[in-house]
Amino acid sequence: MNDLELKRRILERVEDDLQEIEQALKQNLKPHFDLVSKIAGHILFSGGKRLRPLLVVLGARLCGYQGDYVKTFSVIFEYLHAATLVHDDIIDGAGLRRGKPVAHTIWGNPAAVLVGDFLLARSIALAARTRNPKIIAVVADITENMSQGEIQQLLKKGDLELTEAEYFDVIQRKTAILFQGACHVSALLADASAAQEKALVDYGYHMGMAFQMIDDVLDYTLDSRATGKTAGTDIREGKLTLPVIRILQTADEADRSVMKEMIRKKDFKTDEFRRLVKRMEHCGALEYSRRQAAAHVRQAREAILTFASSETRDTLLDVAQYALVRKA
Amino acid sequence: MNDLELKRRILERVEDDLQEIEQALKQNLKPHFDLVSKIAGHILFSGGKRLRPLLVVLGARLCGYQGDYVKTFSVIFEYLHAATLVHDDIIDGAGLRRGKPVAHTIWGNPAAVLVGDFLLARSIALAARTRNPKIIAVVADITENMSQGEIQQLLKKGDLELTEAEYFDVIQRKTAILFQGACHVSALLADASAAQEKALVDYGYHMGMAFQMIDDVLDYTLDSRATGKTAGTDIREGKLTLPVIRILQTADEADRSVMKEMIRKKDFKTDEFRRLVKRMEHCGALEYSRRQAAAHVRQAREAILTFASSETRDTLLDVAQYALVRKA
Repeated sequence: MNDLELKRRILERVEDDLQEIEQALKQNLKPHFDLVSKIAGHILFSGGKRLRPLLVVLGARLCGYQGDYVKTFSVIFEYLHAATLVHDDIIDGAGLRRGKPVAHTIWGNPAAVLVGDFLLARSIALAARTRNPKIIAVVADITENMSQGEIQQLLKKGDLELTEAEYFDVIQRKTAILFQGACHVSALLADASAAQEKALVDYGYHMGMAFQMIDDVLDYTLDSRATGKTAGTDIREGKLTLPVIRILQTADEADRSVMKEMIRKKDFKTDEFRRLVKRMEHCGALEYSRRQAAAHVRQAREAILTFASSETRDTLLDVAQYALVRKA
Repeated sequence: MNDLELKRRILERVEDDLQEIEQALKQNLKPHFDLVSKIAGHILFSGGKRLRPLLVVLGARLCGYQGDYVKTFSVIFEYLHAATLVHDDIIDGAGLRRGKPVAHTIWGNPAAVLVGDFLLARSIALAARTRNPKIIAVVADITENMSQGEIQQLLKKGDLELTEAEYFDVIQRKTAILFQGACHVSALLADASAAQEKALVDYGYHMGMAFQMIDDVLDYTLDSRATGKTAGTDIREGKLTLPVIRILQTADEADRSVMKEMIRKKDFKTDEFRRLVKRMEHCGALEYSRRQAAAHVRQAREAILTFASSETRDTLLDVAQYALVRKA
């Protein structure tokens, strides 16, 4: 089954959930000012996959939860995600996201900083409304780890000595923790057993690690005409990800110095970039990253195979698989 | 008793508390990266008054609390305060704070945005550690209101039609709520009665309103040689505060157009500024603001007069009075 077929199968099963998540995203924004609504809406309603809230809904259902309020709390994780996107775009000096101009280029840095703060505050306030200290602690822990992960990434920009271990630490903090937290909270909302809670935490963690690794591979391989995204963003922003770390480890001296020069000057011609990607394919750096991601997806899937077979379990298995095979 | 004598009397009584708060501020930062420690430290340890954590400590003591962990949680409010200072300085394009260059001019906007996020996250994480849903809800509510207050202020920059009611709404959200929250949490930590809780909430709210109003008056009247602060910052940043709102309401057409021109061009010569301040004194705009602040201080003091007389109550009465008479 190719990526598009898999995507279609998932979407058919979660269509109603996604619609209710969209509703909850709008309802819980309850903006007091038009501009907040506008800016937050610009980032929230511009084609996100809603993967994080979906994991909350599916995870809770997997644990037998049948109520309705899980959807309200699922948006905590989309708000958190959106908050970091707004601030990241400022930090990276990004111009486009999902093919649209980013918030700070339209409304300026001040408004974008504040709307990021507002979204972060909104997600914390929603978590507080659960009045469940465990859930609140998980969300608080996520916000702290994410800011530390981002700072770590900022400090390591352009650092050619970045190790695999440091890269894994950064993506665990800036990405995996949010997926893990969404799955963890799904179990807590459903009042699941300790074993179920652990299984969902493991699923979320491995799924998040794989998701970011594939994101980092796609930054070298995606087809910008099909996706509206631009390849090569990471290297332009000085972000060294696993394919680059790998090529620096394995390439010969000539290739290494070409790489270093591109990273140093943070710019390149299309031809240079294509040659780099070819070199990455040739030395197996992209395949290496994909294989690492595949190992995480395998562990994610194994974690939830501990649950009894159900359509929800199938969907979660598919979602993990899709994180691996997606082309955008 | 003048402002300096009053300050001395307060400081003598809270010397030990302040030392323990300093310790808690350092201990609870537990930075994982040197740069975070450096930037957060730059803003946290540059001469803040520690008023907010002090209110937590004194409020809890007033309610009979004798334990020690209140100091740990008191720093929640200093971290929150520092987080907003870092982001505010970016938003306002400020260059100096307390006579020192601000974080974003030294380390750049990206690092400053992230360290603000980190401090916000740290304060939420500390609140979560109380495992008290009420305390967590108060802190979550503060973060949400503060970001909304800041956004509101940003939207109203340079708006000559700003009303008193809108001004009060902004300062309630961006300042008073933090003082109110600190006092509220002090009562919750001390497991105080509902009446005590309400009294402290009222004290914090009125104290915070007065504190910001006096801050806004001082921006026109302070002696920069004595304080190291620069007068006239608000008008340069397009922030219309109560003295300006009042002068626009009461001045004649000639004065109004001078004012409007200064606000429009966001710049002025020292002479022009002095003339403006003279006009404010002449038409009673500064006195009007001081009187409003005095009314809030009166209400703050009345609120805690419901407690039995004690040294702690005296100190809190002094602190409210100092908010009014301070010259810096």
